[in-house]
Amino acid sequence: MEKHLETIERTLDEVLPKGRPEGFSEAMRYAVGAGGKRIRPLVCLAAAEAVGGAADDAKYPAVAIELLHNYTLVHDDLPSMDNDTMRRGKPSVWAKFGESAAVLAGDALQALAFGVAAKAPRNQDKIVAALGEAALGVVQGQVEDIAKSGDTTYIYTHKTADLFVAAAVMGGLAGGGTSADIDALRIFALNLGLAFQFEDDLLDGDSPYSKEKTESLVRETTAAAVAALEKLGGKTDFLRNLANRLVGRRS
Amino acid sequence: MEKHLETIERTLDEVLPKGRPEGFSEAMRYAVGAGGKRIRPLVCLAAAEAVGGAADDAKYPAVAIELLHNYTLVHDDLPSMDNDTMRRGKPSVWAKFGESAAVLAGDALQALAFGVAAKAPRNQDKIVAALGEAALGVVQGQVEDIAKSGDTTYIYTHKTADLFVAAAVMGGLAGGGTSADIDALRIFALNLGLAFQFEDDLLDGDSPYSKEKTESLVRETTAAAVAALEKLGGKTDFLRNLANRLVGRRS
Repeated sequence: MEKHLETIERTLDEVLPKGRPEGFSEAMRYAVGAGGKRIRPLVCLAAAEAVGGAADDAKYPAVAIELLHNYTLVHDDLPSMDNDTMRRGKPSVWAKFGESAAVLAGDALQALAFGVAAKAPRNQDKIVAALGEAALGVVQGQVEDIAKSGDTTYIYTHKTADLFVAAAVMGGLAGGGTSADIDALRIFALNLGLAFQFEDDLLDGDSPYSKEKTESLVRETTAAAVAALEKLGGKTDFLRNLANRLVGRRS
Repeated sequence: MEKHLETIERTLDEVLPKGRPEGFSEAMRYAVGAGGKRIRPLVCLAAAEAVGGAADDAKYPAVAIELLHNYTLVHDDLPSMDNDTMRRGKPSVWAKFGESAAVLAGDALQALAFGVAAKAPRNQDKIVAALGEAALGVVQGQVEDIAKSGDTTYIYTHKTADLFVAAAVMGGLAGGGTSADIDALRIFALNLGLAFQFEDDLLDGDSPYSKEKTESLVRETTAAAVAALEKLGGKTDFLRNLANRLVGRRS
């Protein structure tokens, strides 16, 4: 876990721009910040190991999914969207750097995410396709959420779970997994993403379902995620522990 | 030319979402619109032919560069950016669909661009890397333009020429070009992009240089673009005509 986190931070530092335009590179780095839990990139690295590959094979896709996740937060916080001035206890990107800089920093983070994903050691076309599908899906999920369409399954699947699915699928592809491996990882990550969202709802006290129903959904999706790992031949302890730790987490 | 334009419009229609969320799919399609000149995707298709490949090999990268170009226009028009209510004689995306929809439609178009580029028949990793470099560069160029840094070479190279370079390089890669071919296409497209921007400045009567100096720059960059084509073994007439037609165009 420590080693994986170190890989993620080091690779983020490697790929994020340092030079010109300087204030803008600073805004991009600020957006990705320190102190994120890096759950999605951890899933990506562990997925490579779960198919019998090396975590390092997945370091670029892992960082790509974190860049993509952070761009969505930068744009979600904009005045025309959620109008949030704070994020992770600090001023949001637009509150600190201005609104146009935040639009552009988000745009640049998304561009960087794809450029970085293409640096995977194999299956680059499938990896970029998986990232592209998630990047489109997460926006479509956000659109239905803003529109209050009321279709919780659609919104949670796309707004939240799509990034988990891309993380796991990209990690499996980078690690050289078979198509059966990728299918199992997809089922794992879809359920993990839903469990994550239901648990978030419990923490926020803001679920579309009753507390009992939401708790039951957390248990069911966690169990489905863990069950999907049985089909994988590599090291799955990390993913199993991650899924089990999400149940009853504090933040 | 007609055939290439038909390929572009048909492929755009194939890849743009039709379904849910419906109003949002409509906003994405509106953003890409009809009536664009499609210069960048035409360069991409012709670049595949210029290295001896088939234009059809480059149809997905061609459409990817057009999606990327249109997302930048959607975001440039936002109230927090240029605050333009009109684009190509019609309401801009934010003026028609609202500001948050325009942020998200731009985001989705960029995501789609990368997903589509990965569908090229070969060299997908290099194609996505080229698109990623341009997608980051175009934002960095815009940042320096907004900041009025005064470095015209930096701004024009990144804000305008990067997309032409990606179009030509992706087309050459999709068509199976050698690395010498790709180098020649890069020089061609950099100069074409600069010529395009200088000619735009003349049309707008708004150049950082005198009229005479700008006209001279158009001629020099056009000549450099055309000269670079000499090194290519395939059909280069289309690219040569395109470069020569840009000089003295009316819009």
